[in-house]
Amino acid sequence: MTITITAFERSPDGGKGLARDTRVRWALEEVGQPYEVRLVSFAAMKQPAHLALHPFGQIPTFEEDDLSLFETGAIVFHIAQRHAGLLPDDANGRARAITWMFAALNTVEPAVFELVTVRIIEGDKPWSKERLPLVEARIHERLKQLSARLGDADWLDGAFSAGDLMMVSVLLRLKPSGLLAGYPNLAAYVARGEARPAYQRAFAAQLAVNTGKSAAG
Amino acid sequence: MTITITAFERSPDGGKGLARDTRVRWALEEVGQPYEVRLVSFAAMKQPAHLALHPFGQIPTFEEDDLSLFETGAIVFHIAQRHAGLLPDDANGRARAITWMFAALNTVEPAVFELVTVRIIEGDKPWSKERLPLVEARIHERLKQLSARLGDADWLDGAFSAGDLMMVSVLLRLKPSGLLAGYPNLAAYVARGEARPAYQRAFAAQLAVNTGKSAAG
Repeated sequence: MTITITAFERSPDGGKGLARDTRVRWALEEVGQPYEVRLVSFAAMKQPAHLALHPFGQIPTFEEDDLSLFETGAIVFHIAQRHAGLLPDDANGRARAITWMFAALNTVEPAVFELVTVRIIEGDKPWSKERLPLVEARIHERLKQLSARLGDADWLDGAFSAGDLMMVSVLLRLKPSGLLAGYPNLAAYVARGEARPAYQRAFAAQLAVNTGKSAAG
Repeated sequence: MTITITAFERSPDGGKGLARDTRVRWALEEVGQPYEVRLVSFAAMKQPAHLALHPFGQIPTFEEDDLSLFETGAIVFHIAQRHAGLLPDDANGRARAITWMFAALNTVEPAVFELVTVRIIEGDKPWSKERLPLVEARIHERLKQLSARLGDADWLDGAFSAGDLMMVSVLLRLKPSGLLAGYPNLAAYVARGEARPAYQRAFAAQLAVNTGKSAAG
């Protein structure tokens, strides 16, 4: 019955918590499920053994008994379905929390990820500098809408849910850019997520892998 | 108990089935649930009445009794959870089908959507032509991986599921580009999806809105 997830042997962010295993670790910490981690190198991620678990050659994956899953959203959803703590009890509330998971991953994250494309993946291209404001404008459109919906609430729909876990995780990618600064309620929302003990434990665990320090160190 | 969804009054694609209401219509047709459609103009989508339903000012939305949802993935998932026909009965099979929904929306669609960005949204920019091959290469990476996983199976994991509905819907966006041509098994997979009677009914219904013809016309 042991849960095993995979994570980068060396995360491209050096342990800033942006690799997607942090989302799965956070979910497991919220529901109080212990887990083991198998570290995978970039080379191993593209080999048949890992591709059998994850057809797109990425991390994280999730294994428990005879079930193996890939795709962060699906893994977090699976954890939230099986264990109390990440979804409300009533059916309509659950449906709305799940809506925010999909919104984080399919409406907000694609815009946010473009910042990585324009700055890093295409950072050496002649159009990178001129393209950046267009990418930022699309992110601002989403942030403005999300900020308007959140208002002065603590979380997106009642109590903290898997929807908030995913949305905070997506917004965390923007922290280094400073783009959240114009939206004090979103910055506070992200800070509330980061302050959760379960997030703290997840962050410490991924940092320990990437710095070689223990979680307490 | 009537289900009401929203759709574009005039779809940007003129009825080619790429607007996201087609995905929801398809799901409702697969499970045999009747529904009503409220058409929304571009101007109305950004007004408070619609933003109350959809914080990002998009279509489709879903309303039934006192539940209102937005975000295509969440709506299709909700339909699949409540009605038989889109998810397997066994828990592990369901988790894997849901994995393919998230994979379609968070791993494959962002790469595919970049084709719209580079060709249309930034089609008048000086970098558009030079950037196109980079965007196409990222799509090919995903298609190659997906093609390898699908192999000669009919569907991604056993019987047709909401995961296939979503993946076929995402790949349909590539049809006009010709990018699927190098992957005969993916092209056949998409064709199998399009051949389903439920898809045919969904396609006809959205086309009728955009051409003013009846579904039979």
